[in-house]
Amino acid sequence: MSPQKHSENIPLVSREYHPNDTVIDFGNGLKIGGNQSLTLIAGPCAIETEELIMDIAAHVKQRGAQFLRGGAFKARTAPHTFQGHGEEALKWLKRAGEKTGLKVVSEVLDTQHVDMMEEYVDVYQVGARNMQHFELLKKLGKKKKPVLLKRGMSATLEEFLLAAEYIAQGGNDQIILCERGIRTFNTYSRNTLDLNIVPWMKKLSHLPIIVDPSHGTGAAEMVKPMSMAAVACGADGLLIEVHPQPAEAWSDGDQSITYEMLEEVVAGVRGIAKTVRR
Amino acid sequence: MSPQKHSENIPLVSREYHPNDTVIDFGNGLKIGGNQSLTLIAGPCAIETEELIMDIAAHVKQRGAQFLRGGAFKARTAPHTFQGHGEEALKWLKRAGEKTGLKVVSEVLDTQHVDMMEEYVDVYQVGARNMQHFELLKKLGKKKKPVLLKRGMSATLEEFLLAAEYIAQGGNDQIILCERGIRTFNTYSRNTLDLNIVPWMKKLSHLPIIVDPSHGTGAAEMVKPMSMAAVACGADGLLIEVHPQPAEAWSDGDQSITYEMLEEVVAGVRGIAKTVRR
Amino acid sequence: MSPQKHSENIPLVSREYHPNDTVIDFGNGLKIGGNQSLTLIAGPCAIETEELIMDIAAHVKQRGAQFLRGGAFKARTAPHTFQGHGEEALKWLKRAGEKTGLKVVSEVLDTQHVDMMEEYVDVYQVGARNMQHFELLKKLGKKKKPVLLKRGMSATLEEFLLAAEYIAQGGNDQIILCERGIRTFNTYSRNTLDLNIVPWMKKLSHLPIIVDPSHGTGAAEMVKPMSMAAVACGADGLLIEVHPQPAEAWSDGDQSITYEMLEEVVAGVRGIAKTVRR
Amino acid sequence: MSPQKHSENIPLVSREYHPNDTVIDFGNGLKIGGNQSLTLIAGPCAIETEELIMDIAAHVKQRGAQFLRGGAFKARTAPHTFQGHGEEALKWLKRAGEKTGLKVVSEVLDTQHVDMMEEYVDVYQVGARNMQHFELLKKLGKKKKPVLLKRGMSATLEEFLLAAEYIAQGGNDQIILCERGIRTFNTYSRNTLDLNIVPWMKKLSHLPIIVDPSHGTGAAEMVKPMSMAAVACGADGLLIEVHPQPAEAWSDGDQSITYEMLEEVVAGVRGIAKTVRR
Repeated sequence: MSPQKHSENIPLVSREYHPNDTVIDFGNGLKIGGNQSLTLIAGPCAIETEELIMDIAAHVKQRGAQFLRGGAFKARTAPHTFQGHGEEALKWLKRAGEKTGLKVVSEVLDTQHVDMMEEYVDVYQVGARNMQHFELLKKLGKKKKPVLLKRGMSATLEEFLLAAEYIAQGGNDQIILCERGIRTFNTYSRNTLDLNIVPWMKKLSHLPIIVDPSHGTGAAEMVKPMSMAAVACGADGLLIEVHPQPAEAWSDGDQSITYEMLEEVVAGVRGIAKTVRR
Repeated sequence: MSPQKHSENIPLVSREYHPNDTVIDFGNGLKIGGNQSLTLIAGPCAIETEELIMDIAAHVKQRGAQFLRGGAFKARTAPHTFQGHGEEALKWLKRAGEKTGLKVVSEVLDTQHVDMMEEYVDVYQVGARNMQHFELLKKLGKKKKPVLLKRGMSATLEEFLLAAEYIAQGGNDQIILCERGIRTFNTYSRNTLDLNIVPWMKKLSHLPIIVDPSHGTGAAEMVKPMSMAAVACGADGLLIEVHPQPAEAWSDGDQSITYEMLEEVVAGVRGIAKTVRR
Repeated sequence: MSPQKHSENIPLVSREYHPNDTVIDFGNGLKIGGNQSLTLIAGPCAIETEELIMDIAAHVKQRGAQFLRGGAFKARTAPHTFQGHGEEALKWLKRAGEKTGLKVVSEVLDTQHVDMMEEYVDVYQVGARNMQHFELLKKLGKKKKPVLLKRGMSATLEEFLLAAEYIAQGGNDQIILCERGIRTFNTYSRNTLDLNIVPWMKKLSHLPIIVDPSHGTGAAEMVKPMSMAAVACGADGLLIEVHPQPAEAWSDGDQSITYEMLEEVVAGVRGIAKTVRR
Repeated sequence: MSPQKHSENIPLVSREYHPNDTVIDFGNGLKIGGNQSLTLIAGPCAIETEELIMDIAAHVKQRGAQFLRGGAFKARTAPHTFQGHGEEALKWLKRAGEKTGLKVVSEVLDTQHVDMMEEYVDVYQVGARNMQHFELLKKLGKKKKPVLLKRGMSATLEEFLLAAEYIAQGGNDQIILCERGIRTFNTYSRNTLDLNIVPWMKKLSHLPIIVDPSHGTGAAEMVKPMSMAAVACGADGLLIEVHPQPAEAWSDGDQSITYEMLEEVVAGVRGIAKTVRR
C-alpha cells in the first residue's frame, strides 16, 4: 500500500474544518484575529543593544503597538554580515517586554533553538526563508505558544497554507499568517506586496493574517500607504520595522521607519480600520 | 555622431518636469487626477448588444460611475473566440454615453483604427498587450483626446513611464495610467495586483493613476476588497468590469461583478476615499 | 447563441492537425525546419549605415549564415533613443541580401508597414513586444512570406502557440517560432532563456523553432554556450546579433558578438548539430 | 562601530579568490569538477524499500552512474504525504552503495540530523527549500564531506553563491552547486530550468556545477533533451531521478525516468560531452 494513496483529510487550517475565525488570546483583552482591534507589531529588524531595544519598546508602546519585535538570530544573505546577538539579545527583548507590557516576538531559525527560546518569547516568528523548513514547523507544532508564519518569497497560496498545516497537525492551532511580499520581475520595490492574498486567506482559512509592509515594499516612505491598503482589504494587523535612526540601523535601514513616521502610520490605519469594520 | 549620445532630457511625464498633478478636465465639473473626487469607470468587457450596453450604462450611472467602458475591438488570446463587433459597437457605446451623460472609454488595438475611433470615444484605452506598441502610442500622442494607458503584463515601472512618455512627446499630456496586475508565479489569482506602484507613480509622476481590480484579481468577489485597498493607497479611480449576468458574459465572466455588487463596491470605496482625503 | 460556445477546432499549428514537420523552402536548397541543416540568422540589432550592413552581410555569409537580420524600425523602450532609419534602411538591407545571396529578415512594427515591407524582406519578424498584436498577426496571415514570431516576454507556451494560430488562420502556415528569453526575477541575465520550450514545441507543434541567445542572455560571452545548449535540445536554428564593434553599436551592444566570436559559435554548434542528428 | 562597516573580503567561492577549478576527489579516480569525466548521480526521489534501492543501484551503476541518490528524509509540501523512512532508509542506501561501489548522496533537512547522517552518506544534499537555512549551512561547513547545494526556487545568482560561501567560511570547500529550475510564470513546466547560470557560475566561481533536469522540467520525456543542453553549456554533471516504475513512485513519478530511458540519456550526453571537451 502506497502512502500516497492515504486519503487527504480536510486541512485543519481551512474554513471547511473550522468555520469561525481563530482568535488568539494573550490575556488582558489582547487578542489577534476575529475582527478584534487592529494588531500592531513594531520594532527593529535586529536587536542591536539593550538600551536601544528599551528605547524602541517605550516609543512604539506609546504610539499604539501591542507587540515588540526584534531579531536575536538573523538570517542574513551573506555570512560576513551581522548575524545577531543570540540568546543575550533575547534577554534584553524579554526585559523590554516586561517593562512596557508589550508581548514580544522573535524569529526562530533552527530546531535547536526552539526550546531555549520558549522562555523568552510570546510569539515565535518563522521567517520567509524557513516557511518550508518542515522539521522546524513540526517542532513548533508541539509548542503551546503562537507562531507567526511568514510567507516564503515564492510560495504559492497553497504552499503557504500547507506550511501552516504542518504546525496545526502537531497540535498547535495558534498560527498567525503574514504576507511580506513575493519575488517578481519588479526591481523598483524590494518585493511585490501581494495584498490580494489577504481576502483570499480570509475566505479559505480561519487563521488571522497580518501584513509586513516594511519587507513588502523595502522603502520607508511606502510603509504608510501600503499599511492603509493592507487594512482596507482586511488584514488583521501589521508588522512594521521601526528604528529611531534608520540610516544607522545594522540591517534593513532603508525600510525602517522612525517614531514620528510610526505615529503617522497609526493615525492613517486607524481611520481605515474604523471604515472597514463599520 | 551616434544617436545614443543624444542627451536625455527630463521626461515630460516626471514630477521633476511638472511638479503639480495633471488634472484632466471633461467639462461639467468632471475631472480626473489632482485629488478630485474618485473616478469610476465601469462597464462590460465586450459590448455584446446595443440593448445590453444601454442597460449597463443606465445601471452604472445610477450607482455612481462617471465613465462607461466597453470593448468594440477585443484583444483575445485565441483567434476563434469573439473578437468584438467593431465600429458598430462603438456607435452603440456612443449612444449609451449620450443618453446617460456618461463619458465613454474603449480600447484601440491598431494604428489604423485611431482616426475612426476619434468620433466615438471620449477616452482611448491602450491595453496591456499594446503598452509597448510604440507606433500606436506615437499616433495617440498627436490626438487631443485623453489616453488611458494600461500597464503591460510584465512591464517594469520604468517601462510603464516611458510608454507614457511616447504619448507625451507627441504633444498629448492627457494620460491616465492604469495598474491592472502583473504576471507572477501566482496561480490563485489571474494576475498579481501590484498596488505599491500607485504611491510610487504618485511620487515620480504628475499623471493620474487608476486601478483595475477586475483584471488585477480575476475574481468577482475580490473586486470589493482590492478596490478599497487601491483607494487606500492613493489611486485616483477604478476601472471595473460590470455585467448583469456575469455567467453569461462573452468574455471575462469570472471577474465581472453585478449591479448589486457594484453598489457595495461604491459604498466601500467612498468610505475609504473620505478617510484618505481628510 | 453566444460566440463563446463556438466549438474550438484542432489548432492548425498543432501536431494533432499536421503530424509532419513544416519545412519552409527558400529555394536553392535553403530550408528551415524538419531536421534540415541548422539555420543561422545573423546581423546587427539596427541597420546603422549602408556601408556597415554591407560589411556585416559579407562577414556573416562567410562564416556560415544563410540569413541576414537587421532592424529598420526599432521598438525602443524610450522615445528619445534611435528609432531606426525606416524604409531607407530596408533598401540597404535588400541590396546587402542581393549582393551576398543571403535572405533577409526585418521586424515589422505596425500594420501600416506590412505592405510596404513586402518588397524588401524575405521573412517578416514579429518582435516580443508585438507577439499579441493581433491585428498585425491577422494581416501577416494574409501574406505569402514566412513570419518569424518571437515569444513575448511573459508569454505562456499556450499564448505563444495561439499567437502563431492567428497567423495560420489567415492562411499563412510559414511560421518560425523563436524563443528569446522570458522575464523572471533574475537580474544577472537580461532575460531567462527558457530552452525547455524547444522540445515542448517540437512535441506539440509541427512548426520550426529557433533560439535567440543574444536577447536570451544579454551578454556576448554567453552566446556561445547557450547556442550550443539550444542546438543540443533540438532547436532548428539560431538568431544572433553580430556587430564588428559591439561597443560602438547604436543598440544592444552588450549582447552583440564580433565576427571572430561568430566563427567560434558556428564551430561549436556544428559539432553539437552533428551529434544530435546522427 | 557598526558590524555593517566590516570590510567584505573576496568571497572564498569566487574565481578571484581561487582561479583554478575545484576538483573533489572521491578516490579510485572518481572526481567531480575541473573538466573531469561527466558526473552522473541517479536514483529515486524517495527510498521506498530496501529491495527497490538495491535494484535501482544495480541498474543505474550498469548504465554509467557513479553516484546513487535517494531521499530518507523528504521535504514534502503537505504534511499528510510520505515523509521518508528516516535513518532506516539511510542504512539501506549505504548497503546499496557498498554492494555496487556507488557513492551515495542523500538530503539533510535539519541541523539535528547532520552528525547522524555522517556515517551513512558520501555527499550531503541540501535541498532547494533549505538553500538559505543558514544554521544548516554553517554546520555543514564544519564537516569533511562534500555538500551538494541546490539552488533555491527563487534564489538569485548572488544569493546562491553566498549560500555556498556560508559553507566555505566554515572550512569546507567541497561544494557542488546544482541548478534545478526556478519558479517563474510558466505552468507548462514544473520549474524553469535556468541553464544560463551554468556558464555564469563557471565564470564567477571555481566550484563544480551540475544540473537536475528532473526537477528542472518536471517531465520524464524532457529529461533527455535538457540533459544534453546542460552538458552542452558546460555542466559538470547531472542529477537524475530514476525509478523502474515511475507511475508507482511514492513521489515525483511524473519526472522520474525508467532504466531504459536512462540508457538513452547517457548515450545522448556522452556524445555531447565528447564534442564540448575536444
